[in-house]
Amino acid sequence: MHKYDRDGTISYCLGTTICFELLFRKPLAAKAIYVSPKQKRDETYAKLASLAKKNGIPLIENNEKIFRLCEKSNVMAIGEFEKFSSKLDPVKNHIVLVNPSNMGNLGTILRSAAAFSVGGLAIIRPAADAFDPKCVRSSMGAIFSVPFAYFDSFDEYRKAAGERSYYPFMLKAKTSLKNVEAKKPCSLVFGNEATGLDDSYLEFGTPLRIPQSSAVDSLNLDNAVSIGLYALLS
Amino acid sequence: MHKYDRDGTISYCLGTTICFELLFRKPLAAKAIYVSPKQKRDETYAKLASLAKKNGIPLIENNEKIFRLCEKSNVMAIGEFEKFSSKLDPVKNHIVLVNPSNMGNLGTILRSAAAFSVGGLAIIRPAADAFDPKCVRSSMGAIFSVPFAYFDSFDEYRKAAGERSYYPFMLKAKTSLKNVEAKKPCSLVFGNEATGLDDSYLEFGTPLRIPQSSAVDSLNLDNAVSIGLYALLS
Repeated sequence: MHKYDRDGTISYCLGTTICFELLFRKPLAAKAIYVSPKQKRDETYAKLASLAKKNGIPLIENNEKIFRLCEKSNVMAIGEFEKFSSKLDPVKNHIVLVNPSNMGNLGTILRSAAAFSVGGLAIIRPAADAFDPKCVRSSMGAIFSVPFAYFDSFDEYRKAAGERSYYPFMLKAKTSLKNVEAKKPCSLVFGNEATGLDDSYLEFGTPLRIPQSSAVDSLNLDNAVSIGLYALLS
Repeated sequence: MHKYDRDGTISYCLGTTICFELLFRKPLAAKAIYVSPKQKRDETYAKLASLAKKNGIPLIENNEKIFRLCEKSNVMAIGEFEKFSSKLDPVKNHIVLVNPSNMGNLGTILRSAAAFSVGGLAIIRPAADAFDPKCVRSSMGAIFSVPFAYFDSFDEYRKAAGERSYYPFMLKAKTSLKNVEAKKPCSLVFGNEATGLDDSYLEFGTPLRIPQSSAVDSLNLDNAVSIGLYALLS
């Protein structure tokens, strides 16, 4: 395993659970599974080995070097995969993240998107890299099941998204999330962690406010997204 | 600044915004504010300096050594403070975290607790350390406004908590969060990130399930807590 290269074609998923997700959901993207020398030859190992074999993916054992590169010493398996592209489903609900900067948040949002059966995550550039191993890990493998795509602008996304309703989440919005039922399909739109959405979104779709005290500036981005998904899509 | 010591009496908050929170909310705990050599002598600096002076807290400038210890190079101010104890308000709503292990989650949960005006966070040991600078930072300063306390067991917490309703959040619960209105004051109870609450909580209070697809094992802990707060307390 080389150091991850954002501009390269290869990425890695760390951890046995996520390796299973890779092999189940995106077997064609998988290139190799590396197993730690510390991994016991138990039932989990046997399952992983058999699944890799079934998909024609090499299982590489006892490669200590690769595991020395891991920050976390408890990683027992690493999956190597080719970056893939996916398409947002135009008739399903989407999350749109405008300029998200934190890879952990991005991964957790993919995880929540899977939990609430979202049909796609649109990411407007500049933005964090969803294929970074940190994001892959915090997604707990949801990156292999939730379609996601990058766009250079919000307008570019809209052209691709099909007819739908839009709900920008903004602290300045006048309508409370509590008072709305979503017209589907819809897109829940969230801004950058530090700056939120700019004021132009106040004139767009139905801007919504998550009721919250003035004791904090805002909620953490992935928490705001999860509340939006729960309230409008569950 | 020395390396943070979990067993010591001192901790640190990194970042200008959080230093302001420290000085506003817990001035008696503050011991010093360190300002980076890179910090411009602008209006923010003047406000911070004046607030520190007003509270009799030394403002230490141009101490390069302390900032070399920071992982993030964009930190312009660091607050040093004495660890403090706080008391949960027995007539208000609480969050109870049983054995949380992740400091980032713990901080973000404090942030959400502030956003939804929670009267206290109970943390059942063994658990992550809320005073760790990582947790302080991810709380965005909410650690200085939300009362929190550690307990050796859930029973010990209950004895201190006063009369209230309990809502354990569990994937195995039969009642959907969607179908409940909270009887207040109440406590929202969540288990460890990896294992959740054990089955004994199924017999306790009103166990609730956040409706979610089977595509993921569960939501990230702080996301589950935020959804619970939004649904029951806002």
